[in-house]
Amino acid sequence: MPLNHQILLDNRPVCEAVASNFTLVCHPTPALLSGQVLVQHHYLSLDPYMRGRMNETKSYSAPQPLGEVMLGGTVGVVVESRHPAFAAGDTVVGMGGWQEYSVVDATEPGALRQVDTTRIPMSDYLGAVGMPGVTAWYGLVKIIAPKAGDTLVVSAAAGAVGSAFGALAKARGCRVVGIAGGPDKCAYVVNDLGFDACIDYKQHADAASLSQALKAACPDGVDGYFENVGGMVLDAVMTRMNAFGRIAMCGMIAGYDGAPMVMSHPALILLSRLKVQGFIVSEHLEVWPEALRELGMLVVTGKLRPRESIVHGLAAAPEAFLGLLKGKNFGKQLVKLC
Amino acid sequence: MPLNHQILLDNRPVCEAVASNFTLVCHPTPALLSGQVLVQHHYLSLDPYMRGRMNETKSYSAPQPLGEVMLGGTVGVVVESRHPAFAAGDTVVGMGGWQEYSVVDATEPGALRQVDTTRIPMSDYLGAVGMPGVTAWYGLVKIIAPKAGDTLVVSAAAGAVGSAFGALAKARGCRVVGIAGGPDKCAYVVNDLGFDACIDYKQHADAASLSQALKAACPDGVDGYFENVGGMVLDAVMTRMNAFGRIAMCGMIAGYDGAPMVMSHPALILLSRLKVQGFIVSEHLEVWPEALRELGMLVVTGKLRPRESIVHGLAAAPEAFLGLLKGKNFGKQLVKLC
Repeated sequence: MPLNHQILLDNRPVCEAVASNFTLVCHPTPALLSGQVLVQHHYLSLDPYMRGRMNETKSYSAPQPLGEVMLGGTVGVVVESRHPAFAAGDTVVGMGGWQEYSVVDATEPGALRQVDTTRIPMSDYLGAVGMPGVTAWYGLVKIIAPKAGDTLVVSAAAGAVGSAFGALAKARGCRVVGIAGGPDKCAYVVNDLGFDACIDYKQHADAASLSQALKAACPDGVDGYFENVGGMVLDAVMTRMNAFGRIAMCGMIAGYDGAPMVMSHPALILLSRLKVQGFIVSEHLEVWPEALRELGMLVVTGKLRPRESIVHGLAAAPEAFLGLLKGKNFGKQLVKLC
Repeated sequence: MPLNHQILLDNRPVCEAVASNFTLVCHPTPALLSGQVLVQHHYLSLDPYMRGRMNETKSYSAPQPLGEVMLGGTVGVVVESRHPAFAAGDTVVGMGGWQEYSVVDATEPGALRQVDTTRIPMSDYLGAVGMPGVTAWYGLVKIIAPKAGDTLVVSAAAGAVGSAFGALAKARGCRVVGIAGGPDKCAYVVNDLGFDACIDYKQHADAASLSQALKAACPDGVDGYFENVGGMVLDAVMTRMNAFGRIAMCGMIAGYDGAPMVMSHPALILLSRLKVQGFIVSEHLEVWPEALRELGMLVVTGKLRPRESIVHGLAAAPEAFLGLLKGKNFGKQLVKLC
């Protein structure tokens, strides 16, 4: 049995998450029982939602238990199988967690999904053609529900969700404006991802200044907003929403550390007759096949080719994750495990 | 031509609205042109939305112009008609404004609506079977969309919208909990309006305390909330919303005077996957016939018999309106004009 390095949640953040919240351990993988599959992970996905699970407070999913392997999406290759649907060599996506190997009960529906890597790189199944891509698809299609010509805005535009959102929005004939941090990310959002414009929020000290920049980039106002960060950015975009605008709320990075994050002008929901709706993509499994088909086609045809930010080896995961929460990554954050 | 007393908006509030924002004038009513109708108002409706229009800032409707008659809903009797669809003696509902008479261009669709007062008192057409009733109906049916057994909460429960909301919610098999100010209003909400419970927000110094009271009154959490006030009450109810809860945002009295009114925990929209939607009932004329039919039946069958708070004479309107904004009224606020 191979040796398996694992990262556990050792203790919960007091306010900001820190590296000492995690601990690295090593155990041999157990022998397989009937119906189980041993997967060697090639990539681990790091995502902002993981920060929410590190807290013990109310969240949409159960808190990450202390002393257990951090939960996370993985793509890898089957090493050994005691389930008839999987064979050694198969490439599979699952929730393998922050570890090098996982033993998966493949009798559980949806626990492992076999994927084809002939035209789509393996790592894309954790990004553009995975959970982040479907997240963008759901917020765009099911909540914002745009029509051609609408102006849409997305925050964290250079990230995995933002890049997919841009490609999906352009495919629907929308004007799409990103918000990202720093000139490099903004240039990438416009030049590589094909957004119509991108605003560097770091150039703006407050919501009023950011609101002015949005006015210039969105002369016809904003019809739909995909919210990945919260705080000042949300406040600013809300001032530019057109009547009957839709806001899909997917992330609130600015508030994960327990910093006070209010919505400054909730009366705008009434004044502009907005719909503001939160969602968790894992609760809408019914849309995944349709969403993954469209996202796969965008990747295969070269219309969605997002950057990746890759660190090597499981031990690098905590620092990469903490950097992600601060926006230090540039593109989909992955850990290459083998 | 009869003399017509009118109240104009003389100047805009600096922060709180005051009586000196208004001025009372008197002019003879003009001679009718073809297609016009002269209506003598019996009742003028006073409603919170009027406060928003007194500001010059962005709102859902154009600001009330200075030097013009304050806009407002009225019910009255036709005195003279030069339109074939209306005859002297007809009872009509319209937007006659803060004045004793109005000259209405009856060729404009929807400008005047003839109503039947044999089974429904005239004044109810400004309340339970009028704009406030339809407001409750729209938020309940189109945004909250409850199923039997859901727990619903409404703020300003003793008011015109709240009382209609309660009757409509009970008719759908929901548990309905009101929030109102003071023991008298709370007793009325439970004993006369038939709510399952009512919480006196004045007994609670902060959102945390109000949230505890809500927990006791809503042991299964809150599935739908009809928001009439904003501020601390909204903050408290949000902490009790169940997953996939719906919040219909109709009013924000707490913020009309320009006092800072934030939403303290917008992350709950994501964590609880809430839908928060603002609406203005005048933009959904397509639902009025269906809504008025149901509301009329509730009144005729005695299931909705809300209180009215009536002042006499046009000159009393400003003080009654300012009192309404502070919650001093008890039931639908009306001005009896003749």
